[in-house]
Amino acid sequence: MENAMPDVYEPTERTVPTRAKERAAYDHELVHSILDAAYVCHLGFVRDGAPVVLPTLYARVDNHLYLHGSTGSRPLRMAGEPDPGLPVCVTVTHVDGLVLARSAFHHSINYRSVVAHGTAYQVTDPEEKRAALDALVDGVIAGRSADSRPANGKELAATAVLRLDLAEVSAKVRTGPPNDEPEDAMLPYWTGVLPLTTTYAEPIPATDLDPSVRLPAYLTGP
Amino acid sequence: MENAMPDVYEPTERTVPTRAKERAAYDHELVHSILDAAYVCHLGFVRDGAPVVLPTLYARVDNHLYLHGSTGSRPLRMAGEPDPGLPVCVTVTHVDGLVLARSAFHHSINYRSVVAHGTAYQVTDPEEKRAALDALVDGVIAGRSADSRPANGKELAATAVLRLDLAEVSAKVRTGPPNDEPEDAMLPYWTGVLPLTTTYAEPIPATDLDPSVRLPAYLTGP
Repeated sequence: MENAMPDVYEPTERTVPTRAKERAAYDHELVHSILDAAYVCHLGFVRDGAPVVLPTLYARVDNHLYLHGSTGSRPLRMAGEPDPGLPVCVTVTHVDGLVLARSAFHHSINYRSVVAHGTAYQVTDPEEKRAALDALVDGVIAGRSADSRPANGKELAATAVLRLDLAEVSAKVRTGPPNDEPEDAMLPYWTGVLPLTTTYAEPIPATDLDPSVRLPAYLTGP
Repeated sequence: MENAMPDVYEPTERTVPTRAKERAAYDHELVHSILDAAYVCHLGFVRDGAPVVLPTLYARVDNHLYLHGSTGSRPLRMAGEPDPGLPVCVTVTHVDGLVLARSAFHHSINYRSVVAHGTAYQVTDPEEKRAALDALVDGVIAGRSADSRPANGKELAATAVLRLDLAEVSAKVRTGPPNDEPEDAMLPYWTGVLPLTTTYAEPIPATDLDPSVRLPAYLTGP
């Protein structure tokens, strides 16, 4: 499967940014690495002519993004309506650091983001849906889907999954130090980068957890 | 000013969710606290009938959101075009924890999000623009705008700022433990919450930083 995928997503008019073009990338591996490092995207769609953006769980499987929802949620219902398919924009952003320049103007953020455009469809095949839901759980915590009760038929029916095939996709990345103007070099302001990381605090067991159940290895790692 | 603002944003058809209604809130103080705890939003707008979602810096001042951009960026240009004003959806999301239920179906995320709908306008008043840019810098690091070189005329002209008045706004919050089915209570899976926090690593000074410039107090705090 991997070999059949292109190494680069073909740039299109809407995936070429109007500014900071040098930060845009279409590299398959980079795009996937950014997508795989997160599990909450911002799903954009159009409703009555106006934009709507909702935080949504997602997972990547090969060249597909699977988006999670309830069958009652708006985008999921819209994707299944008479003329099926919902035009979407799925955006994933990691904030990696704060860039403090000497000038207010050159302050920036180090980030990695992916923007994917396309039409999302409801997944109706039960096998594909089950695999997508496993990927959604494992995307949040690797190994968890095998260590929980699988969805039963009623739960599967109450869950809707959208699929977006990755085709019109771009990544945008900023790294490194501030880009101050040369004439500002002597200004007396601290300048550099403040790196950000997301960390897990101590797990909080549910109050009714059977005390004989040990904390699984996938929660004790770094 | 504060007293003139409503305590609650009036719910509208599009700010009342179709599901998990009990998680929705319109409380002024809650909405503002969620907005003030972040500085990157996901800005949605419609271009050629299709949705676009871009990560964007923002800051709240009173009942306005200010969004940062370059004058060349698409949403900023669109907001200033002949028929001015750009319909937008601005969404801010904090992921606070991973909710591990015994069943795959009840896995969830603890989060706080705000969704704001409305029409954004380019800020043209120089005073308002300068104040908005200070708020954008201070929203990332409190106190930083006073400890950097202010934008000069050329830089101000190269920066565009959009303003969205907060009116059609809702918050959505999930907190607390998993909601497993009672019949799953005896399943042998660990269950609870994995809290997430964003932390700052050691600041990385720019290589050309004058060694006599000390790390400012606003970067040494917790």
